[in-house]
Amino acid sequence: MTFKVTILGSGSAMPTAGKHNSAHILNVYEQFYLIDCGEGTQIQMRKYGINPMKIRAVFISHLHGDHVYGLQGLISTMNFLKRATPLYVFGVRPLEDILDFHIQYFEPELNFEIIYKEINARSSEIIFENKVMEVYTIPLRHRVPSSGFLFKEKHPALNIKKNIPEKYDLTIPQMHALKQGGDIFLQGSEILKNTDATYYPYSPRSYAYCSDTSYSAKVADIVHGVDLLYHESTYLEVDRKLAKQSGHTTALQAAKIAEKADAGRLLLGHFSSRYEDLELFESEARTIFPNTSLAIEGETFEIPVKNYQQF
Amino acid sequence: MTFKVTILGSGSAMPTAGKHNSAHILNVYEQFYLIDCGEGTQIQMRKYGINPMKIRAVFISHLHGDHVYGLQGLISTMNFLKRATPLYVFGVRPLEDILDFHIQYFEPELNFEIIYKEINARSSEIIFENKVMEVYTIPLRHRVPSSGFLFKEKHPALNIKKNIPEKYDLTIPQMHALKQGGDIFLQGSEILKNTDATYYPYSPRSYAYCSDTSYSAKVADIVHGVDLLYHESTYLEVDRKLAKQSGHTTALQAAKIAEKADAGRLLLGHFSSRYEDLELFESEARTIFPNTSLAIEGETFEIPVKNYQQF
Repeated sequence: MTFKVTILGSGSAMPTAGKHNSAHILNVYEQFYLIDCGEGTQIQMRKYGINPMKIRAVFISHLHGDHVYGLQGLISTMNFLKRATPLYVFGVRPLEDILDFHIQYFEPELNFEIIYKEINARSSEIIFENKVMEVYTIPLRHRVPSSGFLFKEKHPALNIKKNIPEKYDLTIPQMHALKQGGDIFLQGSEILKNTDATYYPYSPRSYAYCSDTSYSAKVADIVHGVDLLYHESTYLEVDRKLAKQSGHTTALQAAKIAEKADAGRLLLGHFSSRYEDLELFESEARTIFPNTSLAIEGETFEIPVKNYQQF
Repeated sequence: MTFKVTILGSGSAMPTAGKHNSAHILNVYEQFYLIDCGEGTQIQMRKYGINPMKIRAVFISHLHGDHVYGLQGLISTMNFLKRATPLYVFGVRPLEDILDFHIQYFEPELNFEIIYKEINARSSEIIFENKVMEVYTIPLRHRVPSSGFLFKEKHPALNIKKNIPEKYDLTIPQMHALKQGGDIFLQGSEILKNTDATYYPYSPRSYAYCSDTSYSAKVADIVHGVDLLYHESTYLEVDRKLAKQSGHTTALQAAKIAEKADAGRLLLGHFSSRYEDLELFESEARTIFPNTSLAIEGETFEIPVKNYQQF
């Protein structure tokens, strides 16, 4: 039931040692997802014990080099390691053309299939779903089409309260019906309401990745109630004008989004290399949203099982 | 009069922390040249104090990802830092198409000119020259067209031996003629031979980069007398068959080239990730060529001024 994010990089523009470009690894039930892929991402994966072969899907927020330059190297390494499993790649146009171009020159004999899924950066849509998770896009405001991603754990299966089967002498089909969310007809006209007989053992968890973007209140609505919100904060409030001009956000603005979204926790990243002391980002954001942390590369942020209960 | 090489990476195929892909920085008289540019090269430059803006020219040996994937990121960083100086890029076709493709998508407003110089990997030719250095290609044998590079310091200007001007009461024009390599007519029919009056204060230095390649005796002829020879040794002799199949060289074969070329010193690199203990490469090569070192990233190999003399 793992649900955690490992930061491989959260520096903006020029990558440097210790300040690699954007790349997050989301581990959901031991399935691995890569969000953005700056130069050196595969090197960071090795450094922090992430096996590139375990990546199921890659989500690219937008086509600026510091978010995508590591992808061709990662694909070459997967091919070198004889990957056979298909790799899903989500991104805006013309990411597919760019990948095809590289593959044609550098990996003409690709051992595995790349399943490209074009996303649009204008509306929030579901783009991926499996048994335990759904992924939605988050329209962002940047100099080029840019989309965040909201990863939502699905509701767990309903459990039947301990005493119920014996109390009502339920049959297997009846218990199955309850687990599917249905009510049960008992003797005569009596009805056993599903809500009286079942419960969710825990609440679904969620993680949102929002980079790159200007301050956008709409983002708060889309990610409302998210447990862990990663929001870019390229600049400090003192450089707010610069942030607006370049399509980025300040730490204070990111905190406003987290507060408006009633997020559980805020992660700041995509720091401009102009700032020496990153603590300033944390302290600025905490004036509005106390539960703020810096997305320092190599750190992992786990979202523990929520509202665990049993009857 | 600096002439030194800094190793930014010498790992093959998959890059990992501490084993970055191929990239060497050659510093000749404080002019910087980049040879190959694997993923993460710009990050390594920062780590080892090389300013990307100081790179005058880039030499790409061949179009395999582990030798070129870092170039697009480096170009983006140069643009981000507002480079105005043209950048020379030497490589085989279709490197220009690949660069143009990237620039069109990722740096449509490039502040500086990229002057692409196509090289052929079939014959040794001079491809670059300035006041102090000449660069020649070295045809290599690999799975794709591959070329090494020989960097040769030019002969220094002739010096006139201390006692000569006074002894023969030389005029300025006569001394100028001597420095140009000419003989001088003295009183009557007497001739002052240039060789008796002048000397070279030191001998030109040279560095050769040979990667990727199978064992090729021709390389030894082209780089004969080189002071510092970097030769790939992807495998150990025990895996000689693998080396041949994949178009690579063993440490022992690299040592044979160094011996045949009468090189001053051998640097081994492009090590396969299959080997834990790199010392084995050094010891294997030293059985034939004792002055062998490993091209470990972060290390700098200086070629001191040779045969310094004055009269």
